[in-house]
Amino acid sequence: MKKNTKVNAAILIIGNEILSGRTQDTNTSTLAKWLNSIGVKVNEVRVVPDSEKIIIETLNALRKTNDYIFTTGGIGPTHDDITAESVAKAFCLKYEVHEEAYKILEAYYKPGEFNEGRQKMVWMPSGAKLILNPTSGAPGFSIENVFCLPGVPSILKSMLGSLKNRIVGGKPILSYTISLKTVESEIAKSLKNVQSQNQDVEIGSYPFFQAGKLGVSIVIRSEDQSKIDNCNTQILKFVKEKKIEVVDR
Amino acid sequence: MKKNTKVNAAILIIGNEILSGRTQDTNTSTLAKWLNSIGVKVNEVRVVPDSEKIIIETLNALRKTNDYIFTTGGIGPTHDDITAESVAKAFCLKYEVHEEAYKILEAYYKPGEFNEGRQKMVWMPSGAKLILNPTSGAPGFSIENVFCLPGVPSILKSMLGSLKNRIVGGKPILSYTISLKTVESEIAKSLKNVQSQNQDVEIGSYPFFQAGKLGVSIVIRSEDQSKIDNCNTQILKFVKEKKIEVVDR
Repeated sequence: MKKNTKVNAAILIIGNEILSGRTQDTNTSTLAKWLNSIGVKVNEVRVVPDSEKIIIETLNALRKTNDYIFTTGGIGPTHDDITAESVAKAFCLKYEVHEEAYKILEAYYKPGEFNEGRQKMVWMPSGAKLILNPTSGAPGFSIENVFCLPGVPSILKSMLGSLKNRIVGGKPILSYTISLKTVESEIAKSLKNVQSQNQDVEIGSYPFFQAGKLGVSIVIRSEDQSKIDNCNTQILKFVKEKKIEVVDR
Repeated sequence: MKKNTKVNAAILIIGNEILSGRTQDTNTSTLAKWLNSIGVKVNEVRVVPDSEKIIIETLNALRKTNDYIFTTGGIGPTHDDITAESVAKAFCLKYEVHEEAYKILEAYYKPGEFNEGRQKMVWMPSGAKLILNPTSGAPGFSIENVFCLPGVPSILKSMLGSLKNRIVGGKPILSYTISLKTVESEIAKSLKNVQSQNQDVEIGSYPFFQAGKLGVSIVIRSEDQSKIDNCNTQILKFVKEKKIEVVDR
């Protein structure tokens, strides 16, 4: 992976609880914002069930087209935590006790509390590099370009700090938002013109409701601040002509 | 599709704003719960960018393996709303003005307000069946087994009511939750035993934090209430033996 070229990632959310609707995934948004800040763009997200076959197939498909893959969920002590073993199989690696992880958890728990259930969490693909967990002890791990994180959002968040130096991103992806007191249909044509004149900039239009009023947020995204500024100028020009109010959000 | 056999679905979330982390998707959870209630199990979720090529490829892949596909997002009036045209191309159908949708929106807006931007929302794949929108007028649509809904959560929710009769589900998927004042590692072995004795039941284990205390929710899912009851009995047996407290959540 080369510095300063486009670097992309996929997120693989593993867990029946997301597919059943019981649990609201928030890790996608956390990971995406963090990855943008270090110059990695999320290309796609997939949510799959706790099925070894499906995890292996999906992971191997995602590995072909993405620089990095981040998985969430399935690395705890119970029978439905099958991510580590599935990743080992996807990479045709042994699934074995990670000596360093064993030592970390042996020291983390009180004597006698490092029981069979907890010992399951030190089984990993052979050669895994640990991702330290400052919240609850049990580490995540990486194999090549695949980074396996837990599903509990607060624990996942606390583990990103130590990961930053292991990801080689491109330029950070910058974004600027202009919020307007209008409706999308009023600005659709003008905005389309700005997009056609700036095809390498991502311009999104998102309606919102605030204090009972309708509005539209225009989001401009690029790695290049001058391109964002240029779009912003063009947008503000038609906004002024149309006498649309710019609002704070 | 046959009644009372397993019926599955995929959800395709379309939108750069989800992949950038700007917007937190909540439609997956809404759709999944609603689908479960009418006997449709969500097999997978994919989030893709506003890219015609990727939408077409993903939709055509999902159509092969799922009874139903639900898309969210990209059916508004702006340049980044490309779902309808992409779906038309995926099905090799013309992309044209839907006469009924035109009449609905012509009547919905005040005279002179059904402008060019809004008229974009009546362009659909040829032969599309409308999904009525009681909140903001502009309908969604379906083509064969693909149902295209908007991205705004409140509008999406309001459109599900009229959809129910167009989905042929299997038996509703039932679920029962037992919450315990314990940690996962304490029950991992016993729970694994229950799962091996009940392989056609889905048993998930989810740690939680409540009022500063750790706990575990065990979720049992099946189409068959008696199988759920049977698992519940087996779980409560080991819970009693281990003197673990059952808690309300």
